[in-house]
Amino acid sequence: MDKPYPPVYYSDYLQLDTLLSSQKLKSAEAGHPAHDEMLFIVIHQAYELWFKQILHEMGSVLDMFEKETVDEKNIGTAVWRLQRVVEIQKILIDQLRVLETMTPLDFLDFRDYLFPASGFQSVQFRLVEILFGLRAEQRLLYNQFAYHTRVSPEHQALLKRTEERTSLFDVVERWLERTPFLDLPDFRFWQFYRDAVNAMLLGDRDVVRSNATLTDLEKQVQLEELDATEVRFAAVFEADKHEELIQSGKRRLSHTATQAALFISLYRDQPILHMPHRLLSTLVDIDELFTTWRYRHALMVHRMIGTKIGTGGSSGFHYLKSTAENHRVWTDLIDLSTYLIPRAALPALRPDVEAQLGFRYGS
Amino acid sequence: MDKPYPPVYYSDYLQLDTLLSSQKLKSAEAGHPAHDEMLFIVIHQAYELWFKQILHEMGSVLDMFEKETVDEKNIGTAVWRLQRVVEIQKILIDQLRVLETMTPLDFLDFRDYLFPASGFQSVQFRLVEILFGLRAEQRLLYNQFAYHTRVSPEHQALLKRTEERTSLFDVVERWLERTPFLDLPDFRFWQFYRDAVNAMLLGDRDVVRSNATLTDLEKQVQLEELDATEVRFAAVFEADKHEELIQSGKRRLSHTATQAALFISLYRDQPILHMPHRLLSTLVDIDELFTTWRYRHALMVHRMIGTKIGTGGSSGFHYLKSTAENHRVWTDLIDLSTYLIPRAALPALRPDVEAQLGFRYGS
Amino acid sequence: MDKPYPPVYYSDYLQLDTLLSSQKLKSAEAGHPAHDEMLFIVIHQAYELWFKQILHEMGSVLDMFEKETVDEKNIGTAVWRLQRVVEIQKILIDQLRVLETMTPLDFLDFRDYLFPASGFQSVQFRLVEILFGLRAEQRLLYNQFAYHTRVSPEHQALLKRTEERTSLFDVVERWLERTPFLDLPDFRFWQFYRDAVNAMLLGDRDVVRSNATLTDLEKQVQLEELDATEVRFAAVFEADKHEELIQSGKRRLSHTATQAALFISLYRDQPILHMPHRLLSTLVDIDELFTTWRYRHALMVHRMIGTKIGTGGSSGFHYLKSTAENHRVWTDLIDLSTYLIPRAALPALRPDVEAQLGFRYGS
Amino acid sequence: MDKPYPPVYYSDYLQLDTLLSSQKLKSAEAGHPAHDEMLFIVIHQAYELWFKQILHEMGSVLDMFEKETVDEKNIGTAVWRLQRVVEIQKILIDQLRVLETMTPLDFLDFRDYLFPASGFQSVQFRLVEILFGLRAEQRLLYNQFAYHTRVSPEHQALLKRTEERTSLFDVVERWLERTPFLDLPDFRFWQFYRDAVNAMLLGDRDVVRSNATLTDLEKQVQLEELDATEVRFAAVFEADKHEELIQSGKRRLSHTATQAALFISLYRDQPILHMPHRLLSTLVDIDELFTTWRYRHALMVHRMIGTKIGTGGSSGFHYLKSTAENHRVWTDLIDLSTYLIPRAALPALRPDVEAQLGFRYGS
Repeated sequence: MDKPYPPVYYSDYLQLDTLLSSQKLKSAEAGHPAHDEMLFIVIHQAYELWFKQILHEMGSVLDMFEKETVDEKNIGTAVWRLQRVVEIQKILIDQLRVLETMTPLDFLDFRDYLFPASGFQSVQFRLVEILFGLRAEQRLLYNQFAYHTRVSPEHQALLKRTEERTSLFDVVERWLERTPFLDLPDFRFWQFYRDAVNAMLLGDRDVVRSNATLTDLEKQVQLEELDATEVRFAAVFEADKHEELIQSGKRRLSHTATQAALFISLYRDQPILHMPHRLLSTLVDIDELFTTWRYRHALMVHRMIGTKIGTGGSSGFHYLKSTAENHRVWTDLIDLSTYLIPRAALPALRPDVEAQLGFRYGS
Repeated sequence: MDKPYPPVYYSDYLQLDTLLSSQKLKSAEAGHPAHDEMLFIVIHQAYELWFKQILHEMGSVLDMFEKETVDEKNIGTAVWRLQRVVEIQKILIDQLRVLETMTPLDFLDFRDYLFPASGFQSVQFRLVEILFGLRAEQRLLYNQFAYHTRVSPEHQALLKRTEERTSLFDVVERWLERTPFLDLPDFRFWQFYRDAVNAMLLGDRDVVRSNATLTDLEKQVQLEELDATEVRFAAVFEADKHEELIQSGKRRLSHTATQAALFISLYRDQPILHMPHRLLSTLVDIDELFTTWRYRHALMVHRMIGTKIGTGGSSGFHYLKSTAENHRVWTDLIDLSTYLIPRAALPALRPDVEAQLGFRYGS
Repeated sequence: MDKPYPPVYYSDYLQLDTLLSSQKLKSAEAGHPAHDEMLFIVIHQAYELWFKQILHEMGSVLDMFEKETVDEKNIGTAVWRLQRVVEIQKILIDQLRVLETMTPLDFLDFRDYLFPASGFQSVQFRLVEILFGLRAEQRLLYNQFAYHTRVSPEHQALLKRTEERTSLFDVVERWLERTPFLDLPDFRFWQFYRDAVNAMLLGDRDVVRSNATLTDLEKQVQLEELDATEVRFAAVFEADKHEELIQSGKRRLSHTATQAALFISLYRDQPILHMPHRLLSTLVDIDELFTTWRYRHALMVHRMIGTKIGTGGSSGFHYLKSTAENHRVWTDLIDLSTYLIPRAALPALRPDVEAQLGFRYGS
Repeated sequence: MDKPYPPVYYSDYLQLDTLLSSQKLKSAEAGHPAHDEMLFIVIHQAYELWFKQILHEMGSVLDMFEKETVDEKNIGTAVWRLQRVVEIQKILIDQLRVLETMTPLDFLDFRDYLFPASGFQSVQFRLVEILFGLRAEQRLLYNQFAYHTRVSPEHQALLKRTEERTSLFDVVERWLERTPFLDLPDFRFWQFYRDAVNAMLLGDRDVVRSNATLTDLEKQVQLEELDATEVRFAAVFEADKHEELIQSGKRRLSHTATQAALFISLYRDQPILHMPHRLLSTLVDIDELFTTWRYRHALMVHRMIGTKIGTGGSSGFHYLKSTAENHRVWTDLIDLSTYLIPRAALPALRPDVEAQLGFRYGS
């Protein structure tokens, strides 16, 4: 199609005739129009519009990272789009404040008419979770039922198909595994790192033992925690220990990918790692914001319906609250903080490695 | 309709099939799909959904206040619904951050396809402004054209019809004019108040004259401001001076309504005035938030398209920036602060008046 | 002191010389200045300033409500000040985003120098919790230690003294207990209400049984929930059942106060109940925002230090996450939603009761 | 200093004894304690703490960029720190909502005691403006007086000294001027770009002329705007035209720096330009947020004191509103949007240039 393009009218472009006539109040149908049902519909429609946008962004990043070789140009674009998801998530959370201007008594004016519809049936939100990397087996049961039993057969099929695709988690894991610099000949980075860690833990033990402000019991508690830390550290260096953690469900990210993510976090000041570091911290942002959203959503539900069953037949509050924690995707990245050591204790990069990590922008 | 009501499915209830298929990218139609056009459509649709909700809330408050006698029960409901508008406005403002994740270069990827569509053509936003109280004659011209010349004939007719209805401004003005306590026999409130004001201004002049840290020039500037303040105060007490200000366009709210609003602001601690005071301050909140929204919107447009013409043919930034200030509705209420005097200088209420303003809730 | 008051200089008034020289970096003292330690100090100082303000507001409301008869004028002021607390809490939550611009690696640059200081030692935040109504016995242990063992003896004494004072919870409970209209002669409100509840539950059971979209198992689950709901309802009507719930730790608010709060929620449209209803919902807002703050704070700590011990020797994340739920104060008010019935099913108020709940503001 | 470091107590570390005793109410001194004066002090102190933090961040970025050769590693750190400024600015803006919980009448309870102190005297905010790049000659007069006449002689001297230093604007301008790739031998980028621009403008004129929905008058208006656009474009290509704009005050950024910024905006997808592009857009974010802050601050002042003179003797609202626009620093970057052309019309980079802009991260 060539210029001049046909003139466009704002209202037609946005399909406002359709959009603005898609709010049908069940309470009005039943002959008892409830003022606040309009808000209930509009806000859920706004949520669904934003879910569509999140799917659009995540899907595009997935496409870029599914390639055998990820084009370096795309890292910048991916970060930008994931940061857009972050901004949208802030809106999702803040919108809860709007919903909370509806009091529980106002909700009761139309709640019965909606039975058994429930936000639980938002297929798009499930798709967002799946694309981001939530695994089917990770999901909590909801009143003894799997999450997809409450949606239509078509929607069930769609969810199952999407679960079989690769997720953002998968493609980022593979991209991390391909990170160079992890295993250069004669560059025994992980051995140096392990020595630095051991030195640090020894120092920490001394600090605890000589801390006059602690009681013996307090010292014991803290020393035990340091022991536990040492055990956790071992898995960073030994692939088989890491594999055990994966088998027992305590880890998900592969050993190689974990080491790569740790390397990026430690040397993120190297020019070539600026954007990879951004990418990882943006994934953590998104994970944290979904967790916050789930938790805030649970609080809102508690406030709105107490501990009665929800429109979908759930005691929603307790269920939702549990998902906040259990449906996280990137805890492995968040837990990385446990394995960082201070810059001052970091092994220096070998000059030839550092050269590969830098570039000269200025002339 | 009686229980049990027919079962409702979330996706049908929200008409998601329609809603989520209402995003047609013009860039895709033209054969050059631009990733960010989806955001552009989705965010504008989200805006329009929220405008619909604001119209729903404002319309319902208008209905309550259009009655000859406003039911006292409804004041609480009105405040609650207007505060919901406030919460929605915060979302409208925050959504601009999402839009700003689209860079100017990304916008250029599809901007040409949208010509001459423009947010300027949002009929719902015009309706919100009209319902809130913006008068047609107050609107700034846009590239020499009135605002309604850019919308379809049907939309023009709808806007004109709405302009002829009463607005929130009108009904609240009339409600204020009916406020009791302003003119009780033998209660010469405004005379007492005027005396208190004069005493205060005399004191302020003394403070300026004796302020050793000010230069003579600074003192002169400040004394002139106090003179101007005195002149402005006169209009509070003299209906004909107030009328002059109305004629010259410096005021809009009637003299009686202005005095009522001032009375409510001064004695808002009296139980019976708690909610009326909330109502007035919520209207000021809404006005302030629309002003903020217009200004932030102008900044966003500046950033997105610089000083080039917009999709609707406007140099939107300068126009939008001017509307921020010129399209305010409740400046009369905001300016009331100019006429407040400290509680300590306030005339005491006559006991019989105070009794009428109170009630006993506790046993 | 009389006018003119001595001239005031902005910088002196705010004691900026002191304020802005109160940031001493431990890392600088140790000879290794860490850029981000400034942020760490400044943000914690900003938090402490806001805690001081919250104490100021809560303390003033406590004073008003400690009186034998709460002056009706003060309800408006109390709501206003508690809503200010709400606005401050939003800042507390949003500030976490600023803190999260410090990466875990940046934190490590100075973390060791701070040992064993910890936000856990914020005495003001403990005071806020106590004033709001958190009971000492409700607090979770922290690595097997009570919360006050980590602060100085003077601070311990201050905390204990404050724990012995009345809290906002106590005074609001007593104010609710004095609510009139609950026990008028010949007005058997609670009997009518109980009948309405029973009718509603019967209807709900019918809806479940006749819902063709549910499997037998799903029906059974939902019917069991309705049985549980009925049991919970009984406590609303029977003081001894309510007392049992209090004894078992499932309730805290007295039976009379609970009934009053329910009455206010149900008839909040009556003019005289507008402000009491606002008061209750603002307390719920504050409780919800503290819960959100604790949870978000826990997520931030997780991200910053992983599962290592915190500067105060705690595995802070798990502890903080648990407090989010366990340190709530007003769950009894939130749970009220469970006991609301739709307006349409509400018993009509007797005309003489309604007359007492109304007032005429308009002439 | 070596481990173990002396134990640190939270309250001592933050100097809370000092911090929390730095709120002295003038109203209390005068014998009429005003509840809300505490908020007034606390919020201004919170502002000053954040200003200190902003100075800390901006100062550190200035240091990095003042070097003859900016270390590439530092670009990432600079962006990170400037994005922290962005997050702080959001808090500055949101805090206004807290201040607005103080009503004008509450402010009057203590306003007289503060005379002539004024937020206008915040030396730190002036320093922030100067460091960011606001020039002394750009500042609007305030009641006919220059901004620094209202502060103490020591503060005046400090401001003048800082004005004589280089600002963030200066160092970023110089860094941009050193951008490579702008003038490679035989790579006539700007000639290609100019041709592309001319083709685009020709097309736009055709679209206007053939747009059947426009009246003749509307077409004329739009064609005149396109003419003006063409004139503005000329300055991008011709250094002397650009110099004229600088002389007339319409531009500030040098011609070379402007071309570099445009180049970065156009080719920001090239790996090596990812971070430079972030840097520029973060500077625009900061500028936009200061502008928003000033405008919101003006609205708050309007609401709080109407059009009376402020505590510092100003009719603050109108002055503050004007500074929102006039005190912008990076309008040249924002105006760049005017000179972008769609990616599809961009000249392709010569392969050897593109190679220099890329790097290979993956193995």
